[in-house]
Amino acid sequence: MSEIKYNKVTPEIIEEFKKIVPGKVHTADDINEDYSHDEMPIYGNGYPDVLIEATNTEDIAKIVKICYDNNIVVIPRGAGTGLTGAAVAMYGGVMLDMAKMNKILEYDKENFVVKVEPGVLLNDLAEDALKQGLLYPPDPGEKFATLGGNVATNAGGMRAVKYGTTRDYVRAMTVVLPTGEIIKLGATVSKTSTGYSLINLMIGSEGTLGIITELTLKLIPAPKETISLIVPFENLDDCIATVPQIFLNHLNPQAVEFMEKEIVLASERYIGRAVYPKEVEGVDVGAYLLLTFDGEDMAQLEEVTERAAEVVLEAGAVDVLVADTPTKKKDAWAARSTFLEAIEAETELLDECDVVVPVNQIAKYIKYVYEIGEKYDFTVKSFGHAGDGNLHIYTCSNDMQLDEFKKQVAEFFDYAYNKAAEMGGLISGEHGIGFGKRDYLASFSGEVQMKLMKGIKETFDPKMILNPGKVCYKVN
Amino acid sequence: MSEIKYNKVTPEIIEEFKKIVPGKVHTADDINEDYSHDEMPIYGNGYPDVLIEATNTEDIAKIVKICYDNNIVVIPRGAGTGLTGAAVAMYGGVMLDMAKMNKILEYDKENFVVKVEPGVLLNDLAEDALKQGLLYPPDPGEKFATLGGNVATNAGGMRAVKYGTTRDYVRAMTVVLPTGEIIKLGATVSKTSTGYSLINLMIGSEGTLGIITELTLKLIPAPKETISLIVPFENLDDCIATVPQIFLNHLNPQAVEFMEKEIVLASERYIGRAVYPKEVEGVDVGAYLLLTFDGEDMAQLEEVTERAAEVVLEAGAVDVLVADTPTKKKDAWAARSTFLEAIEAETELLDECDVVVPVNQIAKYIKYVYEIGEKYDFTVKSFGHAGDGNLHIYTCSNDMQLDEFKKQVAEFFDYAYNKAAEMGGLISGEHGIGFGKRDYLASFSGEVQMKLMKGIKETFDPKMILNPGKVCYKVN
Repeated sequence: MSEIKYNKVTPEIIEEFKKIVPGKVHTADDINEDYSHDEMPIYGNGYPDVLIEATNTEDIAKIVKICYDNNIVVIPRGAGTGLTGAAVAMYGGVMLDMAKMNKILEYDKENFVVKVEPGVLLNDLAEDALKQGLLYPPDPGEKFATLGGNVATNAGGMRAVKYGTTRDYVRAMTVVLPTGEIIKLGATVSKTSTGYSLINLMIGSEGTLGIITELTLKLIPAPKETISLIVPFENLDDCIATVPQIFLNHLNPQAVEFMEKEIVLASERYIGRAVYPKEVEGVDVGAYLLLTFDGEDMAQLEEVTERAAEVVLEAGAVDVLVADTPTKKKDAWAARSTFLEAIEAETELLDECDVVVPVNQIAKYIKYVYEIGEKYDFTVKSFGHAGDGNLHIYTCSNDMQLDEFKKQVAEFFDYAYNKAAEMGGLISGEHGIGFGKRDYLASFSGEVQMKLMKGIKETFDPKMILNPGKVCYKVN
Repeated sequence: MSEIKYNKVTPEIIEEFKKIVPGKVHTADDINEDYSHDEMPIYGNGYPDVLIEATNTEDIAKIVKICYDNNIVVIPRGAGTGLTGAAVAMYGGVMLDMAKMNKILEYDKENFVVKVEPGVLLNDLAEDALKQGLLYPPDPGEKFATLGGNVATNAGGMRAVKYGTTRDYVRAMTVVLPTGEIIKLGATVSKTSTGYSLINLMIGSEGTLGIITELTLKLIPAPKETISLIVPFENLDDCIATVPQIFLNHLNPQAVEFMEKEIVLASERYIGRAVYPKEVEGVDVGAYLLLTFDGEDMAQLEEVTERAAEVVLEAGAVDVLVADTPTKKKDAWAARSTFLEAIEAETELLDECDVVVPVNQIAKYIKYVYEIGEKYDFTVKSFGHAGDGNLHIYTCSNDMQLDEFKKQVAEFFDYAYNKAAEMGGLISGEHGIGFGKRDYLASFSGEVQMKLMKGIKETFDPKMILNPGKVCYKVN
């Protein structure tokens, strides 16, 4: 395709925006620094020319149509909690602050769905649904992301092992296309074989194919009880080898997280409280599984706990600690939930990769990245979802120069991604590609697949104005 | 785009094919009549010029490349059990008999996946997996379809209410593109946010975007026990209104099928055995729910059965019959499993639609189609999946002229599809669009979505040679 040239937003166009959404249009000095980056600032900073508080589908369609007619870049942004620069304005243009559309619109309890605006925070829906006796199963680590953002990255989270990822809970959506046209995809229903699955293409497209302006999400009846187990092991190998045994024994945990001692220590420093045992009967603990089971009543869960304890002890666990009260469960999960914050608190320069490998390769993979990591000046920290093989590998430094850090990290990531691919994994489990991982996607997927993705991008966005520079489209 | 012109297969090209797959190339008289239609012959008959028994990915890529270079139509076909003409050669060309690639390649028990060739029959994988203690959850009515065909239509089936549809069990696939290029999509892993979801686009694309040559499918540990309940109601309204109560009470059935008395009678005539009660304590039975629960042991299932019985009786059921032995379960399901055969056995002219409506609209919808059906000379019969709102509506006639039948059915389907759309449903739950439902898809989805689908089709298939005339692409 021919070279793309984007236009600047003129004062006349700003006036047009103001007529559509009076009081919601912000320019230049009026834009907070927060909007210039996401949670991984290493992927670049950039301000949009204009920031518009999103109001509703129709207004967004009008705004986008103006941008389409004038070759102006549009970037939809949720809460800005992404880790790949996907919601950052790299080329100016108009940023739509979707977080402002944050109403839970309607529960349909007979069909187990809820209709929401895309800016509703995960945490807000989760809490509100529970009040109705319902569970929204996706449970990404970042609770203050928007649901629109969750859908745009197909966010995974802790409960994916039992309940699947965000993709599995999206029933329908309204989308404003880069042309300003409005489409409605999907339905309240769960089964569909009605043409190409455009809705599944939108899911995980990171704001590059269309702007999600309404979502219908599936809910399930909330399990009545949960119980968590902290299971210490002497080393990571034993810890990971235990995971398939859990499933083969028909235990069906809601979450299976693994953690190594180092990161638990960092996290406990951060929360200022020690919860996890570091030594059991003279054995040094090297790694832990944190399991959660859900069910209808405590009697049932106690039985599951007994069976689980047998299985993990047989598989090499050195102990089993049961967290069966709200306080104990909160404590057990507090350490896990603050891993990223704990790392951030101790680190100046930070980057991460979010690979996913087959579950039985986790230990081998982790060992590999630590070995490779030895060669570099940064420190490698990792944690992840043992139930689904999704690993978060952090590179942390407090004394390196930025350029040198970036250079070394790029080399390290090449090894890390290649190894994941070699083991039959993928380069992102839940954080997405955005801006930061685009070149890695290209080398992982290969030319043919990138050509297909670009062709799809052009079909949806003939002028390439929507969130350029992300996923598969590199601005010339 | 400009007009497409397809070329005939020349004797020279046939020779080239024979060099690639000696003994596997069939022409003209050598092609069995079975290959000229699917299970719904009303959508037209057509022979390919050449029928090739598929062997492996590389050979298929070579064959497709020749077709691509020469503008020759290619049609992949599984077992031919489709109901929309999707696997029928409407424009001649080369048909690939994918059913010939029917090997179960490898179980990976630590990661709970199985690698198969696309021509493996659903029934064969289901039985083989059970021998390993594993369950392949998708359970479409037609057990002798190929898995490739199941993926191509995102087949749903009985257990979708608990376990989801085929889409949820596809982890990875190898695809030969219409250009002859080979791509590998997905991985053994369950989480992904690695670029646009090309694999989800392939799923449900009915052999129009690429040819699936290998599949990696997710399995789960097989539940150890199942129990079925036959629940008679006075009428369909009471029957359908009961369904949400089952879920709200945290019962989690594997299957929730509804059936009306008429179709049960037809089915019992077909199998020559009466299983379902027609009268309970002086009350005429008008409709039934057939429920299946699975679990770890009979004690647990008996408890579930007790709770389920309370819920359904409270909701208006007139009785609950428990099928807890293999014979009783087989009997209970025999009637349900033979609905289509029972209808076919009594019918000369047949057509069907496969709408899906929100679960709480089922009774209203069924009532509507019967009322509209009164206006026509054919008979309407229906059954469906109460747990997910997927309904199969059959139009049956033994005394109408074909043209008149087609005319009346087209009018009736217009009403039926429009009503499904109005109620927030979709025009196909699991049978797909193929050739027969293409115009209905266009009017349901609207111009903008059809343009996107066509753009995607052109991206994958620049010469529009793969399975033309299906889903979104009408040959000029």
